Amino acid sequence: MRALRGEALAVPPVWLMRQAGRYLPEYRAVRARAGSFLDLCYTPELATEVTLQPVRRFGLDAAILFADILLVPHALGADLGFVEGEGPRLSTVTSAADFARLKPAEAVLGALRPVYDTVRMVRAALPAAVPLIGFAGAPWTVATYMIAGRGTPGQQPARELLYRDPATFDALIERLEAATTAYLIGQIEAGAEVVKLFDSWAGALPGPLFARYAIEPARRIAAAVRAAHPEVPVIGFPRGGGASYARFAEGAGVQAVALDTGVDPAWAAAALQPRLCVQGNLDPLLLVLGGDALLDATRRLVEAFAGGPHVFNLGHGLTPDARPEHVEAMLRAIRG
Amino acid sequence: MRALRGEALAVPPVWLMRQAGRYLPEYRAVRARAGSFLDLCYTPELATEVTLQPVRRFGLDAAILFADILLVPHALGADLGFVEGEGPRLSTVTSAADFARLKPAEAVLGALRPVYDTVRMVRAALPAAVPLIGFAGAPWTVATYMIAGRGTPGQQPARELLYRDPATFDALIERLEAATTAYLIGQIEAGAEVVKLFDSWAGALPGPLFARYAIEPARRIAAAVRAAHPEVPVIGFPRGGGASYARFAEGAGVQAVALDTGVDPAWAAAALQPRLCVQGNLDPLLLVLGGDALLDATRRLVEAFAGGPHVFNLGHGLTPDARPEHVEAMLRAIRG
Repeated sequence: MRALRGEALAVPPVWLMRQAGRYLPEYRAVRARAGSFLDLCYTPELATEVTLQPVRRFGLDAAILFADILLVPHALGADLGFVEGEGPRLSTVTSAADFARLKPAEAVLGALRPVYDTVRMVRAALPAAVPLIGFAGAPWTVATYMIAGRGTPGQQPARELLYRDPATFDALIERLEAATTAYLIGQIEAGAEVVKLFDSWAGALPGPLFARYAIEPARRIAAAVRAAHPEVPVIGFPRGGGASYARFAEGAGVQAVALDTGVDPAWAAAALQPRLCVQGNLDPLLLVLGGDALLDATRRLVEAFAGGPHVFNLGHGLTPDARPEHVEAMLRAIRG
Repeated sequence: MRALRGEALAVPPVWLMRQAGRYLPEYRAVRARAGSFLDLCYTPELATEVTLQPVRRFGLDAAILFADILLVPHALGADLGFVEGEGPRLSTVTSAADFARLKPAEAVLGALRPVYDTVRMVRAALPAAVPLIGFAGAPWTVATYMIAGRGTPGQQPARELLYRDPATFDALIERLEAATTAYLIGQIEAGAEVVKLFDSWAGALPGPLFARYAIEPARRIAAAVRAAHPEVPVIGFPRGGGASYARFAEGAGVQAVALDTGVDPAWAAAALQPRLCVQGNLDPLLLVLGGDALLDATRRLVEAFAGGPHVFNLGHGLTPDARPEHVEAMLRAIRG
């Protein structure tokens, strides 16, 4: 919390994107007991358990709610399922008529009650010193899935709708903005102390549209969240934002910005860190490989960001083939 | 040529990445006559014809050699084939022993003679006012294919070798640097008046390694090319380079930098254009869709870069589903 509020700490706090996940045997055991992936997200006892597992095993400095960014479209009425090894499948929104069938933003309040219950259970179980991070997908990223009905390389279907039918596209972004705001506030009121907005496909936005569809929605969501809960830091993650990271850091009104693997820490330390806390950005592949490459990169990263507020993390999520013992080695390299 | 040398022109010159390609019926006719894709690359008469087609049809302001970035590894001894609809397949380089089997850099002089012949034939056939652009893949991008044996999302195999066996990785980059330099100089001596270095996967480099594996090789190649042919501008394309585009523009010693679709033209006009010519960066999807979105984006792009040297182009290659009539509409919007 101190780093997120702008303090440079001698040892940076650490958590890891997708720290609850398949690389942990204890996660796989719970996953096997849950029916579907969605059942796991919607069963507070199980979601609580997998949220706590990595904190318990590694002594990480924060917990992040176990959930999925597609729960919001699900709450808005999209059909949603996860195909093993292939990812999500949703009913699509590609016309004004499809859009008209979506539920109002407030649907997230009732439909996602199991998530708020998870937040409450996690908060009750966590040591007081370990903050709980809530999260949601950013409107553009969630829209890419809703429009295509699945993950798509380059997010072409979403860009197509944006160009072809900007009115429907904008209406969808606006609905997602409202739903996301309500959802994050719901998580905070259930006990989340930090929230993070994942714009995983921000890098697929054409440059001239980045401000409109990545920065502006984040700014409005962060402003609404902070108006309701001024003490809660918001972390923005415009993944792939490239040079637009600087504009995002200036314009989105977030208290921290998460850096993807491609961001050069030397640049970010000079261009972003004087303004706000940075989070990131070790290559997750290093937690698969381990060895000196991991230790060297970890130490260099800590050093690069030692002059300002920094939350140590990865540049992208942990992968299923990451090794728990490499996470431990990384933590020793950070904490000495 | 004037734009590449730093002149701001009232109407920017235009060419399009992958302007020779499957979206043109006349290309598909030639492609059907050639045996394999490699046969097309290695048959100067056919490669010349497809190089000239888009210039002839649209009156574009430059021709770009028809070839493939994987001809260099092919010349170095890699087996190479193209699987219809799936992309390239190569023998892999994942160990010092694999590397030791590669031919020396000079192999590109003899093995790629058909390419130099194509350059000569194109140059002889082109109007004098239309420059011919030669090109090669940048070492990192070519290495990603040689290491993985194919295109890979995230270029993980290449990052793995880089972390696991940096000595072999560095030797491969060095070999590719030397081969690429010799190949580009060979193209220039056959008649290419501009050369472009495609680092299509620069965005997959972890931030701390971007300078070492994207900027430095480009700098050494550009310096060697310019030492031999000081009049030939070099265009660098560190696709996905994000915030590191600024360091690339400062440090790579190129005369122009090609911008990917994600780069915000407003940022590039302020941060890059005062230093060198920028090329780009219309979303290629707009040449599939056409309509007002295409015309608006085209005009805004021309305007954004009107204050300095600009070569109009796309942010990525033309796709097979692009429509020739949309290319014509775009040209009218640029040229008035």
